Amino acid sequence: MKNLFPLILCLFLFTGHIQANDGYKLWLDYQPIEHAELEQTVSELFSGIYFYGENPSYDIIQKELELASQGFLNKMPSYSSERFQGANLWVGTREELSQFLGLEHQAKIKALGEEGYWRGTIIHEGKNYYALIGNSPVATLYATFDFLKSIQSNTFDGSIEKSDFQKVKLRMLNHWDNLDRTVERGYSGFSIWDWHRLPGYVDPRYIDYARANASLGINAVSLTNVNANAWILREDFVEKVKVLADIFRPYGIQVFLTARFSAPIEMGNLETADPLDKQVQNFWKERVDMIYEAIPDFGGFLVKANSEGQPGPHEYGRNHAEGANMLADALSPHGGIVIWRAFVYSHEIDEDRHKQANLEFEPLDGKFQDNVIVQVKNGAIDFQPREPFHPLFGAVKETNLGMEFQITQEYLGQATQLVYLGTMWEEILQSKTYRPTASNTVAGIIDGSDSKQNLTLMAGVSNIGTDRNWTGHLFGQSNWYAFGQLAWDPDRSAEEVSEEWIKLTFGQKAEVHSKIKEIMLTSHEAAVNYMTPLGLHHLMGRSHHYGPGPWVEGGRADWTSLYYHRADSLGIGFDRTETGSGALEQYASEISQKWTNPKQTPEKFLLWFHHLPWDYEMQSGNTLWEEIGLHYDGGVKTAREMRTQWRQLENQIDSARFSHVDQLLGIQIEEAEWWRNSSLLYFQTFADRPFPESIEKPEGDLEFYKQQRFPFAPGIRPNW
Amino acid sequence: MKNLFPLILCLFLFTGHIQANDGYKLWLDYQPIEHAELEQTVSELFSGIYFYGENPSYDIIQKELELASQGFLNKMPSYSSERFQGANLWVGTREELSQFLGLEHQAKIKALGEEGYWRGTIIHEGKNYYALIGNSPVATLYATFDFLKSIQSNTFDGSIEKSDFQKVKLRMLNHWDNLDRTVERGYSGFSIWDWHRLPGYVDPRYIDYARANASLGINAVSLTNVNANAWILREDFVEKVKVLADIFRPYGIQVFLTARFSAPIEMGNLETADPLDKQVQNFWKERVDMIYEAIPDFGGFLVKANSEGQPGPHEYGRNHAEGANMLADALSPHGGIVIWRAFVYSHEIDEDRHKQANLEFEPLDGKFQDNVIVQVKNGAIDFQPREPFHPLFGAVKETNLGMEFQITQEYLGQATQLVYLGTMWEEILQSKTYRPTASNTVAGIIDGSDSKQNLTLMAGVSNIGTDRNWTGHLFGQSNWYAFGQLAWDPDRSAEEVSEEWIKLTFGQKAEVHSKIKEIMLTSHEAAVNYMTPLGLHHLMGRSHHYGPGPWVEGGRADWTSLYYHRADSLGIGFDRTETGSGALEQYASEISQKWTNPKQTPEKFLLWFHHLPWDYEMQSGNTLWEEIGLHYDGGVKTAREMRTQWRQLENQIDSARFSHVDQLLGIQIEEAEWWRNSSLLYFQTFADRPFPESIEKPEGDLEFYKQQRFPFAPGIRPNW
Repeated sequence: MKNLFPLILCLFLFTGHIQANDGYKLWLDYQPIEHAELEQTVSELFSGIYFYGENPSYDIIQKELELASQGFLNKMPSYSSERFQGANLWVGTREELSQFLGLEHQAKIKALGEEGYWRGTIIHEGKNYYALIGNSPVATLYATFDFLKSIQSNTFDGSIEKSDFQKVKLRMLNHWDNLDRTVERGYSGFSIWDWHRLPGYVDPRYIDYARANASLGINAVSLTNVNANAWILREDFVEKVKVLADIFRPYGIQVFLTARFSAPIEMGNLETADPLDKQVQNFWKERVDMIYEAIPDFGGFLVKANSEGQPGPHEYGRNHAEGANMLADALSPHGGIVIWRAFVYSHEIDEDRHKQANLEFEPLDGKFQDNVIVQVKNGAIDFQPREPFHPLFGAVKETNLGMEFQITQEYLGQATQLVYLGTMWEEILQSKTYRPTASNTVAGIIDGSDSKQNLTLMAGVSNIGTDRNWTGHLFGQSNWYAFGQLAWDPDRSAEEVSEEWIKLTFGQKAEVHSKIKEIMLTSHEAAVNYMTPLGLHHLMGRSHHYGPGPWVEGGRADWTSLYYHRADSLGIGFDRTETGSGALEQYASEISQKWTNPKQTPEKFLLWFHHLPWDYEMQSGNTLWEEIGLHYDGGVKTAREMRTQWRQLENQIDSARFSHVDQLLGIQIEEAEWWRNSSLLYFQTFADRPFPESIEKPEGDLEFYKQQRFPFAPGIRPNW
Repeated sequence: MKNLFPLILCLFLFTGHIQANDGYKLWLDYQPIEHAELEQTVSELFSGIYFYGENPSYDIIQKELELASQGFLNKMPSYSSERFQGANLWVGTREELSQFLGLEHQAKIKALGEEGYWRGTIIHEGKNYYALIGNSPVATLYATFDFLKSIQSNTFDGSIEKSDFQKVKLRMLNHWDNLDRTVERGYSGFSIWDWHRLPGYVDPRYIDYARANASLGINAVSLTNVNANAWILREDFVEKVKVLADIFRPYGIQVFLTARFSAPIEMGNLETADPLDKQVQNFWKERVDMIYEAIPDFGGFLVKANSEGQPGPHEYGRNHAEGANMLADALSPHGGIVIWRAFVYSHEIDEDRHKQANLEFEPLDGKFQDNVIVQVKNGAIDFQPREPFHPLFGAVKETNLGMEFQITQEYLGQATQLVYLGTMWEEILQSKTYRPTASNTVAGIIDGSDSKQNLTLMAGVSNIGTDRNWTGHLFGQSNWYAFGQLAWDPDRSAEEVSEEWIKLTFGQKAEVHSKIKEIMLTSHEAAVNYMTPLGLHHLMGRSHHYGPGPWVEGGRADWTSLYYHRADSLGIGFDRTETGSGALEQYASEISQKWTNPKQTPEKFLLWFHHLPWDYEMQSGNTLWEEIGLHYDGGVKTAREMRTQWRQLENQIDSARFSHVDQLLGIQIEEAEWWRNSSLLYFQTFADRPFPESIEKPEGDLEFYKQQRFPFAPGIRPNW
């Protein structure tokens, strides 16, 4: 007991001195180990670390182990200069450690692929060594993060072997960051890319960003907005990008840029951007060569073309494949790829927007180069609170398809609401497509297991900004985390991922775990209920998409709310069966035939596919009108319950984070009430029916709600 | 020695664990006291703190003492519930402590005014008590900060009494922050005011901001851009402002807003904003009443009118006094004031811009209400690297005049250059105006000692933003600090202030002090030399004002560089004597008569007032052309020397801050070379003379420099 006193004293003395927890450290805040036995084990491992080689990724591993050792044990680790004498923890690649691995073991690890890793105990000459082994230095870094997470979440067991590998090749963040540092649909401050001070000044945050992503296995990032500015392709800007690429490389992260299709005109002095024009092809080839000169492992381009006013091949009578292939040809000699977004809808085509991507891309199946992947949003409209999976998944057979999720909560409470997206993504990924075979899921297409595609991709539109806690709302971090985990393995359980994040973020108290998990797992359904229940969609405020706007009309029809809810005196909903837009038919017949009948359509998608009378009888026996009211009101009640749960944790969470979340939950309740009140008052003007007895009556004046204006809401182009 | 071991162990264990110094804590980073004797003294004082009352400012003092005690001593302070028993440190107002102060002492403290304070030892019944005594709770907070600074800078001496008081009534930051969080001329990220999440969410940074300002005696802040948006005057936004005002109040900080003169039209549904219109007057009265309902101690309005496109009274044939007085009438019943900017120049008047403020305001002398103060920039053009003092100082007798300095370095290296502005401000403040009397200085007008005005003001355009270190460049903090100190007492020495800031920011090492002081004190002259030596001005890039642009021409004449440097084959400079624009005559005759002769004009202002031949002989014996070259080259050399000096401190400063400043000094050298090369190459096209032998020849191609474009430079409205 003699040695205990100084340590206790230290902890006491410093507790007050440590800065308030502002969330900057994310899930990588290594806290002192509370369990004596684990502390002893870890202390031994950290007292003799041996590296089997030298390379930039190992330097990073070393720094990470030092940070972890200081956090876990309050001391620096010790290194061994020799692999046997004094060594307890081995770090290296499969090749470097091959002499200690049997042939079968080597083969098993090798089969995990370039980014796969194994960790466990190796016995050599009677002594145990714990080994972190990757198939590459970056994979060894992944093994290290997994090892550290297991300690931090109190689950490390040296006697258990663990191996893992990436199911998806490209696990990518898409930043919608503009060059002036505003972020389209960004709610956590501004862009962390300080272009003005690059290349001369390196913000330490770039390193912390790379580290956080590597800890999740994210291995690619596009830095710039898909509504692209060609300026990023200039040499002075490529010099800036190079600095970021150099920082990210040892973390295993590849850099992509967004390519503006009209760049040959805007910066190449050409009169056309026609993808079949020789000069245009040369422009791109030269530009790409210049980029690879600076960044030899440049990933390639992410392109939004012929969508929402962006230029594209249609201007020249060419199709998406011709546009994408032209860029693919320029990138191909360097190993680069083109990510071509399927989120296209033109002003000309007078079709339900739901149908347009399939109409464009199905005919092009098999026409894209091998190094092109088409990136498809999870649903056919636009990241709504809930959408059925996009019908392009399963509709093409010879086109690489990648997933585009939105981590930033454009339609899901932005950064004022706690909405855990893991469950929503899981719902999409586990959806059965019935194509190409009966057992197929979206996940099986994305990871290639069903689709057999080699080039696989899961992209997430980043929610990262300059806010100190990175994501504006502390719980936004859980969505970044969950995205990374699902990109690594699309079949992971969202619940399991939430448990993992909670343990890493909030420590080891069981009550904290259970309450926060309940909050997280109910949060998405709550948001759907108080925003767009039963398949309603696209009801938000115009332009900034902040708050309710079911009354939004005027201008382009499919940018209004009326176009989507189609409420009238008879009923509500968008008929997408054959009597309506017919979009339902774009799904496999197993789905389309069943869902053409509202009684066989999951009620969560009911009004997505059907226009139904207000008195339509729901499974509960209530009328549709009553059920809508119950859902809106239920959403509000869940939001309130979330805060009640949170407040029970007041003394179990540090005050800075407690207060941060508590204040935001207060805003969330107000916003939920605002959605409920204004939506129900508005729909009542059509339904002309009383509210169900059992719900809290919507308060306020519909006109008041309609008059609300938010010209300075974040995430949109500044309003002057 | 027995007790020493645990402490040493603690320090060792935690050193590595403490976060990298990111500059967030500013000059308030209380570090462990190194000197044993001082530690003993402070430890005793902190072991028995007694508060003579309860109020929100004392709560803040308590929190500050706790933070300081943890930092200085690694322990929490102890409080005494009784003023004698166990008490060592007394905290209270003069009134609360009156029974321990003789009548004379009370009178002396009272004479220091509402914000004045005294600190020192009081002996009562043979026992010593150290007392922090203000004339108000906020003044006691000022005494506390002064006390803590003295400890932190290792100068505390309990036997020495210290009293101090504000020489200027309003010590104010002007934020040029837009409601969408962009900041006009902001180079340290974006606005710290998160309007969207107010009032529901309070960013902890608001409190840290208030604390930092209070530690400098800053007692007023205008939150919004002078290029104003009327939206801030809406009730929903006033609710947000109220939250900030409530936070700032116990720190002694009053909130002001910028008023857009055309608000009655834009939001009041009126057809005019004529200040003599009854309805317009009513609009403002109602608006002001509404604001005071929410914020009883609201400060008033800051107004930019009829300048650079802003609306104002001229539209209705009214003058500035009529415009200002109308607002003053609305504010007066509540004790509010109007701050009316003198930075006006219209599109119509075809006069040297230098003259316009005097032309507008001299005829209005005596016509402004008592609660109006005219805020005048330090020079007549626009915050140039160096300007002579503004001729309005001394030109009016019955108008309250306040100073407007620019802390944000719009023309002085923005946030990539280390330029200490204290010396520049001192040069202005100590300038002799010769009016109203021969001994007058600008400082004497500002603080009322010469001008006898009661309402006094020093405003600084803030350099604060969302960057983690608040000011983008760590040394930007020194300008915030120096501004606060000079606003408190305009006669303070800039050198002394720099010493103070260095000690608080970088600790106690003598070599660190002397090197950093040298860097700071030479930095402004260096910047003037490599940007605009010898009275040259307004030579920067168009719009963003980033980098050199001596070739800028076209458009409005007085927004070009050619208008100001007037270089031609014969010579260079702006003739402002009677043979030119005559602006010189706006100064007192003691100045104007002397400076009409170039030989008697300080060479630092030579080309500000004179157009002179390239071969004009300077005091050094060199020609003007040679002297220009030597100055530009000398500026570059000083910039390089600054980095050399800094690098000698590598092991004496923590690596995070060392590297931050070192990288930026690298950029500064490049920018200095860029200024020198492009300016000299450009002026050579007129002078047609070789460069002096002794200078480093300007490198590069003038055309290359002229082609540089920075559409995404910070601090301007986003370029789409």
